[in-house]
Amino acid sequence: MAVGNVPFPAMPTIKGVRLGSTMAGIKKPGRRDLVVIELPESATMAGVFTRNAFCAAPVHVAKAHLADCQTHQQTPRYWLINTGNANAGTGEVGMRDAKKSCDALAEHAGVSPEAVLPFSTGVIGEPLPMDALLAGIPEALKTCDSSGAAWQQAGEGILTTDTVAKGASIVVELGDKRVTINGITKGSGMIKPNMATMLGFVVTDATIAQPLLQQLLRETVDRSFNCITVDSDTSTNDACMLAATGESAVIEAQEDITIFRNGLQRVMTELAQAIIRDGEGATKFVTLQVEQAQSRQEALDVAFTVAHSPLVKTALYASDANWGRILAAVGRAPVNDFDVNRVVIDLDEVRIVEDGGRAPSYNEEAGSAVMAREEITIGIKLGRGEQTATVWTSDLSHDYVSINADYRS
Amino acid sequence: MAVGNVPFPAMPTIKGVRLGSTMAGIKKPGRRDLVVIELPESATMAGVFTRNAFCAAPVHVAKAHLADCQTHQQTPRYWLINTGNANAGTGEVGMRDAKKSCDALAEHAGVSPEAVLPFSTGVIGEPLPMDALLAGIPEALKTCDSSGAAWQQAGEGILTTDTVAKGASIVVELGDKRVTINGITKGSGMIKPNMATMLGFVVTDATIAQPLLQQLLRETVDRSFNCITVDSDTSTNDACMLAATGESAVIEAQEDITIFRNGLQRVMTELAQAIIRDGEGATKFVTLQVEQAQSRQEALDVAFTVAHSPLVKTALYASDANWGRILAAVGRAPVNDFDVNRVVIDLDEVRIVEDGGRAPSYNEEAGSAVMAREEITIGIKLGRGEQTATVWTSDLSHDYVSINADYRS
Repeated sequence: MAVGNVPFPAMPTIKGVRLGSTMAGIKKPGRRDLVVIELPESATMAGVFTRNAFCAAPVHVAKAHLADCQTHQQTPRYWLINTGNANAGTGEVGMRDAKKSCDALAEHAGVSPEAVLPFSTGVIGEPLPMDALLAGIPEALKTCDSSGAAWQQAGEGILTTDTVAKGASIVVELGDKRVTINGITKGSGMIKPNMATMLGFVVTDATIAQPLLQQLLRETVDRSFNCITVDSDTSTNDACMLAATGESAVIEAQEDITIFRNGLQRVMTELAQAIIRDGEGATKFVTLQVEQAQSRQEALDVAFTVAHSPLVKTALYASDANWGRILAAVGRAPVNDFDVNRVVIDLDEVRIVEDGGRAPSYNEEAGSAVMAREEITIGIKLGRGEQTATVWTSDLSHDYVSINADYRS
Repeated sequence: MAVGNVPFPAMPTIKGVRLGSTMAGIKKPGRRDLVVIELPESATMAGVFTRNAFCAAPVHVAKAHLADCQTHQQTPRYWLINTGNANAGTGEVGMRDAKKSCDALAEHAGVSPEAVLPFSTGVIGEPLPMDALLAGIPEALKTCDSSGAAWQQAGEGILTTDTVAKGASIVVELGDKRVTINGITKGSGMIKPNMATMLGFVVTDATIAQPLLQQLLRETVDRSFNCITVDSDTSTNDACMLAATGESAVIEAQEDITIFRNGLQRVMTELAQAIIRDGEGATKFVTLQVEQAQSRQEALDVAFTVAHSPLVKTALYASDANWGRILAAVGRAPVNDFDVNRVVIDLDEVRIVEDGGRAPSYNEEAGSAVMAREEITIGIKLGRGEQTATVWTSDLSHDYVSINADYRS
């Protein structure tokens, strides 16, 4: 069960964008597992992909097709997504299967194979079940439409160990035009994205040149998907795509870029946070807020060191105000010339550490009251500079171990 | 329960070294929790300490006393160790308590306070229970003797969540002299030592000048305690001490240094491995053997990335041959220009990955047979160079979560 309320929002229609899905039998019988997202010819597109060196076959193919389209001043028309199988660690066979999937959709849809970008998620190292996948493609195409229900079904069709479909939507006003941004995402374990998350798909009706779109995607992903961690494991299949259909306002003037970027950032952050709320076995939603660092990288290093500490995560799970574990994790972060006497650590409104040790005002009762909450902010001030970072994470529970000890069975 | 057989060895007497211990009521009633180790005036001594920035009060005091003795060309005479309380994150009060403990032992033993080095382990952030500790010091002193039983009781007296006392001993022949090396250690969780482990005490009767002793300690710790991880959390209290009593052979000639270093390395490695076998919740003992790296640091980075992966650790716990998780972890290791097509991964004798994907010879049955073993070696060849690293780790089990969710209760 996800932490807090993670409702799937009512998604407005974006003209020219149609979504279809089906139960192809790739994951489990009766589970939606194959999704097609169709984009209009007018669209521009940007993408960011995993930096895992063992990146999956579909990631290689998606990057190549995207580059090929851009060389020919075209934009891909389809995102083809399957769950239940990551097509990663599958060598040459995996590359062939990913291309075959694109060929099949291209033929049914009457576009070139390069106009199709493939995405896969699920177990690593097994060959794609091609018969099921190929049979599912025309079925998924048949169901394509632009409704909110289609967005929600697409959200369901990309899930793995996730327990809820995850979407976010915003409408921003630009002069007399309204710009819509819709996004869906998935991810629950193997979540410590590096460049993007385990699949995010975001579409807007704004009109945005490709280089600017890519820049906006990178900037907003860096402060959303790249700031979450469930278990420190970066997936082989991470990808986040952003398309602008060109139906609504032109985003070009600096003022408009700012308004649009803020809206996009909000959608990205909501999607990223939804992944943490639905993190494998999560019972807590934890915000690490690091301030007064010398650099943003230093702030991120401290935040991720605490967020990855199994001892901090099990204390959070136990609602145990064992704040010494937070102090120990901060102390082992890779920071040079670290003066711990300047460090201040707060649990929500309760100060736990100052002057190198337990804050004089601290008492166990107040600490325990905060730790019992479902949503907790750990505030860490380093006393070294002006830079900040915010990272979101979940706890480490018995269910995390159960889910991952039983995943393939 | 520890993985495999971790017997406490029969420790030979080392002349002039006496160990005492008592149940002072610091940890729990009926648990040995205070240890005194007495060394002869003739001894030389070396130490390595945690690099956690929030290092504990006793670490500060031990380093200062050691330095002070060295300035006066003396050697500390006592190691005073308590379990049940780490005296870390305790600010000025903690410093005062650590010094008071030294003062008390010094007075009883008739030495200067600087001749006493304090070590603490246990919960972080609570003040030391000074009444119990001070009352226990004369009791522990009274029991001091040189027997194997005294070594074993000292091994028991420093444990926290450990389930077994851990010792190692070796006798090496140097010409017509026999040199003995005895060591004890503790540690089970918060184990990713950086410079030393969560308390190791090693004594030899050899005659070794202090600078060489320090160099040998550093070299052997780097390939033993600094190559283990249970949960990636570096403690605030890590310390490993080595004393040479000067009773037996003089270690000075290169040939003798090599023989002695090999013996010392073996003791250090046995102690470090004992910590992993008794790691919190451990059901597996796993060796990461990385070869063909461009540098030792690169080999260590890959080994620790795999060893820290919660997904690899839960698959090991489940005896699930989910090798894709190993591949994904290798792929996210911080290695530049990583050509995954040259990577080879083996589970014991079974090849799982080559040419960027599943090895053609691999079959699930063979993989599962290896994963069912209690002791497993994951061999990773990077195909980039000549450097190697070996790291030892345990799995991530339900018991790890239980132990750390319940630790303070």
